[in-house]
Amino acid sequence: MHILLTNDDGVTAPGLFALYREMRALGEVTVLAPDHNWSASGHVKTLHRPIRVKEALLADGTSCLACDGAPSDCVALAVLGVLDKKIDLVVSGINPNANLGHDVTYSGTVTAALEAAIWGLPGVAVSLDVSDDHSGPLDFAPAARIARQITHMVIERGLPKNVLLNVNVPYLPVERIRGLRITRQGLRVYRDKLDARKDPRGAPYYWIGGEAPTGVVETGTDIGALAEAAVSITPLHLDLTDYDAIQELRTWDLDLKD
Amino acid sequence: MHILLTNDDGVTAPGLFALYREMRALGEVTVLAPDHNWSASGHVKTLHRPIRVKEALLADGTSCLACDGAPSDCVALAVLGVLDKKIDLVVSGINPNANLGHDVTYSGTVTAALEAAIWGLPGVAVSLDVSDDHSGPLDFAPAARIARQITHMVIERGLPKNVLLNVNVPYLPVERIRGLRITRQGLRVYRDKLDARKDPRGAPYYWIGGEAPTGVVETGTDIGALAEAAVSITPLHLDLTDYDAIQELRTWDLDLKD
Repeated sequence: MHILLTNDDGVTAPGLFALYREMRALGEVTVLAPDHNWSASGHVKTLHRPIRVKEALLADGTSCLACDGAPSDCVALAVLGVLDKKIDLVVSGINPNANLGHDVTYSGTVTAALEAAIWGLPGVAVSLDVSDDHSGPLDFAPAARIARQITHMVIERGLPKNVLLNVNVPYLPVERIRGLRITRQGLRVYRDKLDARKDPRGAPYYWIGGEAPTGVVETGTDIGALAEAAVSITPLHLDLTDYDAIQELRTWDLDLKD
Repeated sequence: MHILLTNDDGVTAPGLFALYREMRALGEVTVLAPDHNWSASGHVKTLHRPIRVKEALLADGTSCLACDGAPSDCVALAVLGVLDKKIDLVVSGINPNANLGHDVTYSGTVTAALEAAIWGLPGVAVSLDVSDDHSGPLDFAPAARIARQITHMVIERGLPKNVLLNVNVPYLPVERIRGLRITRQGLRVYRDKLDARKDPRGAPYYWIGGEAPTGVVETGTDIGALAEAAVSITPLHLDLTDYDAIQELRTWDLDLKD
């Protein structure tokens, strides 16, 4: 079992190292991760420029690879042959913020696992639901342990074809976490606000600011599971078709007009 | 009716201007588009740096806005207040390559329309299926005319909540196009190959190379419609949950282990 580990926070991120320590118990682990942060950078295939891959070291001195591409590029490069050895599984994370609801297409963590699914590999994205007012270092160890249990099940049972798992773990000691739930994607509520400023020369620039997103707390969803202190495991796939809408749109006049 | 136009090829792209000329017939049009190419850049929310928005001119001298954010950032900025006037609809394109199957989460063109859906607005992404061996300037006029017909229907009939349309037009004269089809997302077949090179100093770098993707030609899909010279209109939504997989995963042992 050869596991590729990546993330969207960069190769030096504590969440990646915590995951690395647990994943070693499940097989051979190779880390190929971005050399800088790619949060909210989406599903990227870097075609317009070449990508550099360099040797780097993890916090325990283990050799790894850092690249200047996106998380999804790391997966593609590994599959395409930057690594000599075939990959069996991709695990991405641990992201120090939850990836819930509509976050999934923005998320570098989740889109790395999405890229794995495109290449026919099982992918697991792991994120930690840290509250907005947390400050100071995070303890990733409980989430890493849970990620190991879930990844072990993925290895034992396999995933359905083209499916990835989006795992979100409450930021709580393990004994306060109320089990694992299989969920559907919930509804995020974004609270972005425009923050318009002037530079020292009087020219305008804009931050996308505002408060962190909330979500609709509903039983059966990722957001609902976290609200009940449970781990959320959402199976995602690559088909964004709205099948109900197909029926409705077929009532439209579909002749080409001049 | 106030229409926001954007794209992923940048504000000077001929495909955007062709779309602009047709969309004017449907209402007031504002162009806010990236100042450079963002192809295959995915669904982005730029949070780590501020975004600049500058006045620019279209090919007929019309004033527009260019920004250094991604296509999805253009939509978010417009909604959040960079434009004084409320937007009713977002149209993105015309991309000079098809966006089919798994392309949708990579595509700047499609994720701009996805961003519109997140903000509760109807979104239409328009792409032209140009063959790999085409060279020279493209005639976007037929696709722009078809985009206008489809957008007119979206205005008349409305879209179901949270749905965007992914429109792909064959690169053919209008009289050879065989109608509009409502389709589901098909299966892309990527043919990426690693192109490993050495720089003048002997250090390695990598291009994601290989041939353009093909796809599984299947009736009812986006790829199938184009293969039959029809326009493909795929309703997409934001829910990536694989509902079938939920049932299967609920047979797993979901107790937390020590």
